[in-house]
Amino acid sequence: MRYISGEPRRVEVKALERNPEAVRFVPLGGLEEIGRNMMFFEYGDEIVIIDAGLQFPEEDTPGIDFIIPNIEYLQENKRKIKALLITHGHLDHIGAIPYIMEKIGNPPIYSTALSNALIKKRYDEFPNAPKITFMPVKIGDEVKISQNFSAYFFGGSHTIPDAISIVLRTPAGNFCNPGDFRIDRGPKGEPRNLPDLERVGRMGIQVLFMESTRATVPGESMPEKVAEENLEKILNQAKGRIIVTTFASLLDRLGQVINIAHRLGRKVALSGRSMKDNIQITQNLGYIKIPKGALISLEEVSRYDDNKILILSTGNQGEPNSGLARIVSGDHKQIRIKPGDTVVFSSSIIPGNERGIQTMKDNLARQGAIIFDSSMMDIHAGGHGPQEDLKLAIKAFSPKFFVPIHGMYFMRQTNTKNAQAVGVKAENCLVMDNGQVAEITKETIKLTKETVPAYYVMVDGLGVGDVGEVVLRDRLMLAQEGMIVIITTLDKRSGRIIKNPDIISRGFIYLKDNREILDEIRRRIRSLISRIPTNQPIDADYFKGLIRDQIGQFIFHKTQRRPMLLPVVIEI
Amino acid sequence: MRYISGEPRRVEVKALERNPEAVRFVPLGGLEEIGRNMMFFEYGDEIVIIDAGLQFPEEDTPGIDFIIPNIEYLQENKRKIKALLITHGHLDHIGAIPYIMEKIGNPPIYSTALSNALIKKRYDEFPNAPKITFMPVKIGDEVKISQNFSAYFFGGSHTIPDAISIVLRTPAGNFCNPGDFRIDRGPKGEPRNLPDLERVGRMGIQVLFMESTRATVPGESMPEKVAEENLEKILNQAKGRIIVTTFASLLDRLGQVINIAHRLGRKVALSGRSMKDNIQITQNLGYIKIPKGALISLEEVSRYDDNKILILSTGNQGEPNSGLARIVSGDHKQIRIKPGDTVVFSSSIIPGNERGIQTMKDNLARQGAIIFDSSMMDIHAGGHGPQEDLKLAIKAFSPKFFVPIHGMYFMRQTNTKNAQAVGVKAENCLVMDNGQVAEITKETIKLTKETVPAYYVMVDGLGVGDVGEVVLRDRLMLAQEGMIVIITTLDKRSGRIIKNPDIISRGFIYLKDNREILDEIRRRIRSLISRIPTNQPIDADYFKGLIRDQIGQFIFHKTQRRPMLLPVVIEI
Repeated sequence: MRYISGEPRRVEVKALERNPEAVRFVPLGGLEEIGRNMMFFEYGDEIVIIDAGLQFPEEDTPGIDFIIPNIEYLQENKRKIKALLITHGHLDHIGAIPYIMEKIGNPPIYSTALSNALIKKRYDEFPNAPKITFMPVKIGDEVKISQNFSAYFFGGSHTIPDAISIVLRTPAGNFCNPGDFRIDRGPKGEPRNLPDLERVGRMGIQVLFMESTRATVPGESMPEKVAEENLEKILNQAKGRIIVTTFASLLDRLGQVINIAHRLGRKVALSGRSMKDNIQITQNLGYIKIPKGALISLEEVSRYDDNKILILSTGNQGEPNSGLARIVSGDHKQIRIKPGDTVVFSSSIIPGNERGIQTMKDNLARQGAIIFDSSMMDIHAGGHGPQEDLKLAIKAFSPKFFVPIHGMYFMRQTNTKNAQAVGVKAENCLVMDNGQVAEITKETIKLTKETVPAYYVMVDGLGVGDVGEVVLRDRLMLAQEGMIVIITTLDKRSGRIIKNPDIISRGFIYLKDNREILDEIRRRIRSLISRIPTNQPIDADYFKGLIRDQIGQFIFHKTQRRPMLLPVVIEI
Repeated sequence: MRYISGEPRRVEVKALERNPEAVRFVPLGGLEEIGRNMMFFEYGDEIVIIDAGLQFPEEDTPGIDFIIPNIEYLQENKRKIKALLITHGHLDHIGAIPYIMEKIGNPPIYSTALSNALIKKRYDEFPNAPKITFMPVKIGDEVKISQNFSAYFFGGSHTIPDAISIVLRTPAGNFCNPGDFRIDRGPKGEPRNLPDLERVGRMGIQVLFMESTRATVPGESMPEKVAEENLEKILNQAKGRIIVTTFASLLDRLGQVINIAHRLGRKVALSGRSMKDNIQITQNLGYIKIPKGALISLEEVSRYDDNKILILSTGNQGEPNSGLARIVSGDHKQIRIKPGDTVVFSSSIIPGNERGIQTMKDNLARQGAIIFDSSMMDIHAGGHGPQEDLKLAIKAFSPKFFVPIHGMYFMRQTNTKNAQAVGVKAENCLVMDNGQVAEITKETIKLTKETVPAYYVMVDGLGVGDVGEVVLRDRLMLAQEGMIVIITTLDKRSGRIIKNPDIISRGFIYLKDNREILDEIRRRIRSLISRIPTNQPIDADYFKGLIRDQIGQFIFHKTQRRPMLLPVVIEI
């Protein structure tokens, strides 16, 4: 089993060993994974944070709602924190905010209007949280944050409107974090935002913190226009109703779909709460222009002919309670699948969701739907640039130092090769891990011996951080082989068994069908007890150990399985 | 949660309702999934089976070793079984054989030399199994199987040598099952085996049973030669040692790699038992030509310069105990990763394995290895043809009826569209499910009302079929929220609690850190008991129900989690 909770623990160094001239850089999350992006910079008595995202659970964190960054160090130093800067409103960049804000002293949040709105939306579920101070920023703003830090914001390029890129101006020079990034390409692939990146490059970038999500993928990003045209082609061919499913967070895509539908004379109904909320918020701020009368409610769908309807729905990853899942299962109040419906999955598959999506497609196909996905035609342009995008951008920024962020080690290491291909010196690339501390001066960047806690903090139900390694390890063990509880009731004085041992098991074998094994376990326990000299008090822990060893061996011999074996001794 | 055990159960019809003129066709597995391929044909008193494969476990079958087809119907009718025909030696076509052969009366197995050898190899682990009767066949053979069935074998095209395609000659005409299939393409993509398929087509194919693994993927298969050339380019550039990892079952690929290495002046050492076994078997039969002196043992590796070595290893899916995993973790006896090693993943990623593979790549990169995979360059030609391959083949066979096999419903349904695109009538396409029964005559193919059992049979350790739905459901529940056992010890006569309730929990919360909840649960149990009138015997089941409800609610309220709650009442 993989170590699940994310190195490192804490390694402290004496204050003396720190270089007071250097700006300290610490990634708290997003390196070694996709998600929970968070990093901070420290200089003297000042700390500036960029992003505070969450990570979705994985196969080795079963039952967890999500994972957030560890903020132990920030908590202890909260009086130093001057600002939290947000690059964009996706959950892997803002999702942890409600859980950590109070603990880190509720610093002002610098973000654009849409990010602000999405953060506020998320706060709806936390009515008791203290009010946040927003410092609204927009593209082109230059903002003084504290004595030693200021920030310049320029245009980001991702799949959500109002994304910004950041140049943090520090005593050690300009640090650039473009956020989630692809080259903004025109219809023929021309890099439209390149002049802007080059302009920022001319400011002099000391360190570039560049995302690495697709750093190992050759080629350049597909123009959004091509994806849109292909999507329009498919939608134009559809004869009956159309259902398009995608991420509620791909706000640019949602705008496209609504406008294509309008051009094709179809009304759009929204299915799924996050879809409705996000479109509402984005429309209110003017980032999606929705033609008048383009949207209708789900109740109104039945009033129109099938070829006048497009339903935009959540559920592209096969999520069990999503809009599309309810439509497919027949649990949706207004919409059922009809033969001849066209269903378009306009998104990529997140690893781990393949089977759920296939099952959903099966259920759609069985009900007569016609299905399209991005494996059949290029109808999804991802938000993260592959190698040629990254190289173009790195060259434009022409940084002195390069620190790849976002992604597994392998992806980030490959990203340093991208940087080196466009002129960054190999010795100026630094591949770090979460919780490591780098010191950056005008001349150097170097890793220190210090580390700050960066292990996983898991959110499960109401608990934040109470599911740890032990609990997860148990869950994984239980899932593999199940468990068996053996309860032995002993007379405290004589050490004799008072009643037949009780045996409960779940996830192991169906005991009702396996009486033999059950009887044999009971017989062996009685025999274990009888081997202990009488009139000698029984050491319960010793006896439990015996049961674990001997009954465990017996079960393995009989079944080749190792269920979790939990002996209980009750002394009366 | 998805229904995991595979419909259907049994629906019987009276013998009278069966059409005695028709050949009955029953798929037992491989429809509704990838894997456990098995089908049979029945006419009068004769049954012929094609393939008997296994399916690897999925996220909703935790802890299972694998899944095999349900053979209940065949077991009951074993005296009718005349033959088991095998298309090729991959586990999804032969893996179930050792578990079912005796139960179905040990019928003769018709297969090619390599398939025979691989089946025998698999039998090594079953020393007590009865001896199999092999009927060796080769391409071009026409074999009389029984009174009503005979078979013609022609050349298959997949990623393993000695794969065969089958024309089963039946009273209802020629039934063709090409097995796992792609078009055999020359270096420029030319379909080399097309004339042969057309020749078979001219025999007159009544029903074509065609695989659908990549039926939704547009385009044609990549020529094996292109993959080989790209692989050679990468290997030619490598400066240090090379490690190539792929499936031990991709025997054609293994042959390629060994020969490329020989051309580049590198010795090949094999890592991983299945790799060694499979190459040995294939070489013995003459299907891989290995130049003299091309192979060395792992012990000899250190005697050569790094640029004279290529290691061919299992572990391309990140499997924990594979050759590559042991090399990466430092547990391998002879080989460790050195900076400058080139590691090539020459395979595709099986959904579900992404994270394990990423972790392996991370560990490789951290040790200084240079990594290539098929997302970076076309170095893997899959064994299953996409749409253009399927269309070419279907057109060549020009069957009257078309039954798509292998794959989820959605894929198979799309495959009927491929067939219709090349002239098969829509009404002549039949999309079936596992366990359904079709009757085929010279004029018609139609689904009957009858079904035979086809639900999952799971193999877990020594148990075959003893892990059922209940056990799996429990494992999945345990993995999500863990469990909590509450043991209440009561005085049988007074109904009073004798000792403080014992509470054990695993995978829920770490109880040592949560004494409050523990104390509150105990308090609530005592209060539940006290509400029952004294001097009235306690109904243990009623009391357990109370605990489940009330303590369950309390825990949910406190934590928003629903661990599996197991109350035990011990009456003394």
